[in-house]
Amino acid sequence: MRITTVRSEGLAQLSYFVSSEGEAMVIDPRRDVDVYLKLAAESHSQITHVFETHRNEDYVIGSLEIQYHVPRVQIAHSKETGFKYGDISLSHHDSFRIGNMQVTCLHTPGHTNDSICYLVADMSVSSAPLLMFTGDTLFVGEVGRTDLVDIKKNEVMSRKLYNSLKEEILPLEDGIVIHPGHGAGSVCGGDIGKRDFSTLGYERTNNPWLSLEEEDFVQLKLDQRLTLSDYFKHCENLNTVGPPIVATLPMPCALDPNAFEALSEKPGHVVVDTRAPDFFVCGHIPGAINTPLKEMGQFVGWVFDPEDNYLLVLERAEDLEQARNYLLRVGFDSVAAYLATGMDGWYEAGKPRGILNTISLADLKLGLESGQIDMIDVRQPHEQEKEFIEKSIFLPLTDIEREEGNIDKSRQKVTMCPGGVRASAAASILKRKGHENVSVALDGIKAWKKSGYPVRAAE
Amino acid sequence: MRITTVRSEGLAQLSYFVSSEGEAMVIDPRRDVDVYLKLAAESHSQITHVFETHRNEDYVIGSLEIQYHVPRVQIAHSKETGFKYGDISLSHHDSFRIGNMQVTCLHTPGHTNDSICYLVADMSVSSAPLLMFTGDTLFVGEVGRTDLVDIKKNEVMSRKLYNSLKEEILPLEDGIVIHPGHGAGSVCGGDIGKRDFSTLGYERTNNPWLSLEEEDFVQLKLDQRLTLSDYFKHCENLNTVGPPIVATLPMPCALDPNAFEALSEKPGHVVVDTRAPDFFVCGHIPGAINTPLKEMGQFVGWVFDPEDNYLLVLERAEDLEQARNYLLRVGFDSVAAYLATGMDGWYEAGKPRGILNTISLADLKLGLESGQIDMIDVRQPHEQEKEFIEKSIFLPLTDIEREEGNIDKSRQKVTMCPGGVRASAAASILKRKGHENVSVALDGIKAWKKSGYPVRAAE
Amino acid sequence: MRITTVRSEGLAQLSYFVSSEGEAMVIDPRRDVDVYLKLAAESHSQITHVFETHRNEDYVIGSLEIQYHVPRVQIAHSKETGFKYGDISLSHHDSFRIGNMQVTCLHTPGHTNDSICYLVADMSVSSAPLLMFTGDTLFVGEVGRTDLVDIKKNEVMSRKLYNSLKEEILPLEDGIVIHPGHGAGSVCGGDIGKRDFSTLGYERTNNPWLSLEEEDFVQLKLDQRLTLSDYFKHCENLNTVGPPIVATLPMPCALDPNAFEALSEKPGHVVVDTRAPDFFVCGHIPGAINTPLKEMGQFVGWVFDPEDNYLLVLERAEDLEQARNYLLRVGFDSVAAYLATGMDGWYEAGKPRGILNTISLADLKLGLESGQIDMIDVRQPHEQEKEFIEKSIFLPLTDIEREEGNIDKSRQKVTMCPGGVRASAAASILKRKGHENVSVALDGIKAWKKSGYPVRAAE
Amino acid sequence: MRITTVRSEGLAQLSYFVSSEGEAMVIDPRRDVDVYLKLAAESHSQITHVFETHRNEDYVIGSLEIQYHVPRVQIAHSKETGFKYGDISLSHHDSFRIGNMQVTCLHTPGHTNDSICYLVADMSVSSAPLLMFTGDTLFVGEVGRTDLVDIKKNEVMSRKLYNSLKEEILPLEDGIVIHPGHGAGSVCGGDIGKRDFSTLGYERTNNPWLSLEEEDFVQLKLDQRLTLSDYFKHCENLNTVGPPIVATLPMPCALDPNAFEALSEKPGHVVVDTRAPDFFVCGHIPGAINTPLKEMGQFVGWVFDPEDNYLLVLERAEDLEQARNYLLRVGFDSVAAYLATGMDGWYEAGKPRGILNTISLADLKLGLESGQIDMIDVRQPHEQEKEFIEKSIFLPLTDIEREEGNIDKSRQKVTMCPGGVRASAAASILKRKGHENVSVALDGIKAWKKSGYPVRAAE
Repeated sequence: MRITTVRSEGLAQLSYFVSSEGEAMVIDPRRDVDVYLKLAAESHSQITHVFETHRNEDYVIGSLEIQYHVPRVQIAHSKETGFKYGDISLSHHDSFRIGNMQVTCLHTPGHTNDSICYLVADMSVSSAPLLMFTGDTLFVGEVGRTDLVDIKKNEVMSRKLYNSLKEEILPLEDGIVIHPGHGAGSVCGGDIGKRDFSTLGYERTNNPWLSLEEEDFVQLKLDQRLTLSDYFKHCENLNTVGPPIVATLPMPCALDPNAFEALSEKPGHVVVDTRAPDFFVCGHIPGAINTPLKEMGQFVGWVFDPEDNYLLVLERAEDLEQARNYLLRVGFDSVAAYLATGMDGWYEAGKPRGILNTISLADLKLGLESGQIDMIDVRQPHEQEKEFIEKSIFLPLTDIEREEGNIDKSRQKVTMCPGGVRASAAASILKRKGHENVSVALDGIKAWKKSGYPVRAAE
Repeated sequence: MRITTVRSEGLAQLSYFVSSEGEAMVIDPRRDVDVYLKLAAESHSQITHVFETHRNEDYVIGSLEIQYHVPRVQIAHSKETGFKYGDISLSHHDSFRIGNMQVTCLHTPGHTNDSICYLVADMSVSSAPLLMFTGDTLFVGEVGRTDLVDIKKNEVMSRKLYNSLKEEILPLEDGIVIHPGHGAGSVCGGDIGKRDFSTLGYERTNNPWLSLEEEDFVQLKLDQRLTLSDYFKHCENLNTVGPPIVATLPMPCALDPNAFEALSEKPGHVVVDTRAPDFFVCGHIPGAINTPLKEMGQFVGWVFDPEDNYLLVLERAEDLEQARNYLLRVGFDSVAAYLATGMDGWYEAGKPRGILNTISLADLKLGLESGQIDMIDVRQPHEQEKEFIEKSIFLPLTDIEREEGNIDKSRQKVTMCPGGVRASAAASILKRKGHENVSVALDGIKAWKKSGYPVRAAE
Repeated sequence: MRITTVRSEGLAQLSYFVSSEGEAMVIDPRRDVDVYLKLAAESHSQITHVFETHRNEDYVIGSLEIQYHVPRVQIAHSKETGFKYGDISLSHHDSFRIGNMQVTCLHTPGHTNDSICYLVADMSVSSAPLLMFTGDTLFVGEVGRTDLVDIKKNEVMSRKLYNSLKEEILPLEDGIVIHPGHGAGSVCGGDIGKRDFSTLGYERTNNPWLSLEEEDFVQLKLDQRLTLSDYFKHCENLNTVGPPIVATLPMPCALDPNAFEALSEKPGHVVVDTRAPDFFVCGHIPGAINTPLKEMGQFVGWVFDPEDNYLLVLERAEDLEQARNYLLRVGFDSVAAYLATGMDGWYEAGKPRGILNTISLADLKLGLESGQIDMIDVRQPHEQEKEFIEKSIFLPLTDIEREEGNIDKSRQKVTMCPGGVRASAAASILKRKGHENVSVALDGIKAWKKSGYPVRAAE
Repeated sequence: MRITTVRSEGLAQLSYFVSSEGEAMVIDPRRDVDVYLKLAAESHSQITHVFETHRNEDYVIGSLEIQYHVPRVQIAHSKETGFKYGDISLSHHDSFRIGNMQVTCLHTPGHTNDSICYLVADMSVSSAPLLMFTGDTLFVGEVGRTDLVDIKKNEVMSRKLYNSLKEEILPLEDGIVIHPGHGAGSVCGGDIGKRDFSTLGYERTNNPWLSLEEEDFVQLKLDQRLTLSDYFKHCENLNTVGPPIVATLPMPCALDPNAFEALSEKPGHVVVDTRAPDFFVCGHIPGAINTPLKEMGQFVGWVFDPEDNYLLVLERAEDLEQARNYLLRVGFDSVAAYLATGMDGWYEAGKPRGILNTISLADLKLGLESGQIDMIDVRQPHEQEKEFIEKSIFLPLTDIEREEGNIDKSRQKVTMCPGGVRASAAASILKRKGHENVSVALDGIKAWKKSGYPVRAAE
């Protein structure tokens, strides 16, 4: 048996390629499936099954994409959800043999009603389970969210999750390895630990949720303040009906500055600048939104609309595939074109250079103290809860497009985040919306603290 | 101005990417167009035009494929042919400015009625032409074929070619660089020199065709014996109506031995083994045809039928793209699947191992002399004309599928070619057709001669 | 914390790159260290420590090579061995902080006297250990060999190992993840399971060695019959004094057939043909030894002598680096040259073609039954113990060079192994040694059994 | 015969790999020779000769580096220079057969005393020459410099060059293809045309130098104002004695921010920031010099000192090899380390962020007009001669380190160049030298003109 963890950075989504004796399965594949096909080739194994842990909401699933390339693959997911595609509807305790592996389903509702954990035994050794893929039911140091199915059903789902953990997971052996559906940084959990794996024994001792009584568990779930984003519904819909096959989507066109500019001025078209913030602030296409490639995977879903068409500006032409994948992973399929000449060509063609001002932390501190600057903290709720800068205005990047109307256009504004990336994104959105007086603090809260400036801890 | 010659090995087809001041043109693109898109990105230039020198017959043109990826590209070809696609119908002396280049059409019928040569001047220096793309009108040391439009019109076309050379080409300056449509080894010329370029001055002195009088020229053209292949008509048709877009074709499936075997037994499915002959003879899927990747580009069109579906056996999984490209380049679009496990997996699954016997040159010589062996020379006519082995039977690889019925099934047969590649292909076709007694001489005629064995020169 | 398992195929050696909060450690690095430097770059972390689990004997350690590229790295290994290099001499319970990880040494003699297991805690969660790197002390389903230090001390070392397991390992928690130093196929264990990881709980239940009483444990260790190879001493020596830095070794020369042939005829030079057996049998340089790239990693140490100079024949030029690495990993540093033209060029230059006969299983069976053929089984002892073909002669590939004198040169011989690779290697060695009548059974014992032919199981 | 032109961007140096019938030669190889070895492998040919056109001064030659990897290679250069390495000392009309090529030397002193042009005939066609490698004797639209051997001998060398062209080059046929040693942008010619090739016929008509009488030719040569750089002497010296073998040089260390900072503070260590100017101005290591990778090839020799040790800051880790190569190509061999974490890691470690102010063209124009700003034009003499901005101070990047003392430290300064790259480099040098009031005009003179602002043409 050989397990490869495939991480989708940004989304912190974990999928798994597991092979044994010439057969293989994939757990929760992402949509750009080359990685699994390559692993199959390298390990001389045939993918026979794709197992989905639930109808995911934070990314678009790649099951059909794998089946498109390897037709004999069987797609398996819960019978609890009315999936419009797939080959096997799973019930509690259904079991499959793949190579030397025995894969057994545990129905563990809570995060969703269709959540399944997959127990895997190495039959060449023993029929006792060796490891478990826990999807969004159990994470490293965390448990799944219960607010996403319907915020009004949060309590009901919390009780279901409590029971699933108590009845199905906790009775298992300490020595079982845990492979969850997400790692640290995912929006699918509150405070997921910075590892991709654990064991049930380790979690039993160290995961605070697993030692709570039911009522405390439910209350704490109801108190969690987590990121919500409009694109979740979009992904859920695609994952229910089955998303379009990426291999059949048109490729982005290569446009020169004139054609790129013309297309960008059409309604429903958005210029997405994937370069680093340092690049963006010094010069960009006016109206472009900055989602740096480095963290694009995480927040492209927060700031764009799946109905729009995307026009990409890239640091290097070879970034095209990755930037497009980040959009495809959350179901934003209309990547219409990219600027073939790069920004150098834009300037050489005499096109205008948009600029965002930056501000040093010392000047920012002075401005805050004197009341001349509105500092907008664009982090996520759980980050801001821990500590924040006095007098800052809290407006997460996820909400900024919707709520920018509440910001005083006449005031001088500075956006801030941990390290400059989201701040640049937020500032680019504000400028696109007509705010004039916007600067970016490229040195974020991490550097603020290293400079010895004060933050206020949550009470 | 920067010129990159893009060679399609095997077909010996030459296409050109030419850029100047941020604009670029492509001459006679092949169908796998990544190479041009990459050159455009690397040179920071926009492809504005694709120029076709004529309706090609030995490969499928990639003009529409480029336009699919770069929509603003204009496709230009002669008004003489009823092309069903394209944007510009060219007449004699039409002229275009691309960057600092001035591109001027010369109508040069002969190879076809729609043949065009493109003269290029570097306007940053002078309006006098610097170089010429000559398509299949003028090659290094050769001129275009005149028998392909219609063998009955060979004389008419020969006279047209003579006149085009005399009236349009030869009056130009000696210092003009010549970039032809094919290099050595192409079926589109008799004996093309082993270079990709020349100058008009050099050709004027050294190309024997350019110093002939008209009647001698025509007579020699009528005497040329050149490769004909059924797939030429297929390519012509596709090039008239515009071929399917490769980016929209389904990708080959990855099949395991069982699924691969099942599909291979369906009518209209052919197993194509692209491994080296040394590999193939020791073990292969019974019924497979051996077209080694190394020379697959050249003769895939000779031995397959565009109506069939292809199932690939690869030396290494990473060869898939290239093997598929070789089929796509000649319009064999139905590459249905490949054996994902490689041949190792085939044997491990307990599937049968087909074997081809090999024979040493010493044994072959004895067998020939004693009359116990029929040696089948599968080279092309122009190769056999130069020299051949006494008592050999001449049957080119291009004709073997059609004419294998004339071969005595009861006799022991050995296939032979210059170095073993075509011999292995021919033997695999004979075996598929039910011939039992077939061996391959892996050491070909080159080694035969090095061993001091006799060949007979043409008279 | 992020762990990447780096497998050296063939040797089945497992090394680990582990990063946390910008710092990283490597456990038991191999000598081609690019992989670790890349992982450091990708994870934006600095390698601060290399930990060796013991003075390895089956491969050459890459600690100094990493330090050559990243000078600040500290190399740590046991104080029990007189290492001539390194920065930290470790004692029982020494402990290190790397990022959020606390790494603690357990002195666990048995496999060697200097064996150390490394316990790792994730301090962001708890000081209780999460995982352990067990080196050659504890494997998946197996325990370390005790016969390598000195076969005469086997019993003493077995008792040490028993005690290390009992006193240091077994008292730990079930939930601890186990990352061993080798996977299935390694010569460093008897019958290592086909996984790269386990947990202490799972091993406690399923690893047969862990439930034995001391006397049974020791007796079973004394009964194990495992592969021994001369190159082990060579690796041990290099690992004690510190091996040469690969980055400073000369690169192999690119030679044409004439120069290659000339060099191959000098004393102390061996031609190593790394192509697949199917290729090799059809044609090779006379005198070459066939170690196919696919399994070269495993048995290059078994058949060559570190004092020799190696001349490589490659399937493809891009295989050079990997083939050389396989030699370097076991300390065979003198890779003098490769045949730049490949075998095609060899034949084109008129050089001789060596051939190895192959034999079908049906013919082999007949020959065995009639007594006309000596079948030489070249597998390893533990493979042969399980099942073998009646009348076969057992002579492992590891011993063939040393013991070929005992084989009757006048008899017809067929080499056999599981799937043809070692058989081809063995046959090439016999031919080099002057045996004439040697054939290879490319279809090995796996296919023999699939054909329904009988094998005899161990009693 | 197949010719591949290998361009070293920046230096605009052209080298050539030419193969024929399994043999190959390289003309004027650069020092990072992988490209030639790969071409040899791809074309199945053996490099037999390296031909140098003269003792180059603007880059370090790679002849010995090729010979290190392919020992049988013969290095050939003129007998006129006391080369301390090499195998063949060439005289006028020496001739060599390589494959089907006949290579004949023409001694053409002028650029240097040891300049040689290589005439090549394709012997499979004719003994008449087909093409010529002209080194630094004849360029596209230009001729070689005559001021580099010794500015005092400019007239003597000009007359020699005139005679070489008249006696050796011009008598040849128009149809001969010309492959020069440099392309547009090289410091080795005044105004080299934007092509890599030409023909003698085309140059005879269009190259203005070829139609001059001797006295006019000499006078114009004496009037040329071309870039001079200290590193020329360094390259000349290395090229006379033979440079160190790159394969034996130590690789750069991977350092974290602390170690990088510590090393950068030692005498003789310079931080070279190879990121784009947009990146650099927003944040950099104080004291770093900005030589953006994109044009690093060209001006690294202008601003550094071969005695120094270089510490690299990279946009991406994969740029390391290319950045190092740019330094090696001009003989700056001591690339000691790179910042392994990138600048993100620098900021995260709390290290200081240096900033360079930028200025819009509108503000720059106002500042110039009001006299508040000193604008420093850092282009090369031949660029400035054509057109310049009124009131600008001319100080080429090549001279800025030597002459910064003449700049008024108290004034506000803005550096400017065609497109921002050299301006950023110049500003970074001024800041390192202690100038405080320095800004960069990222939009250079190209954009200045597109904005309709005035430039003054040379009279």
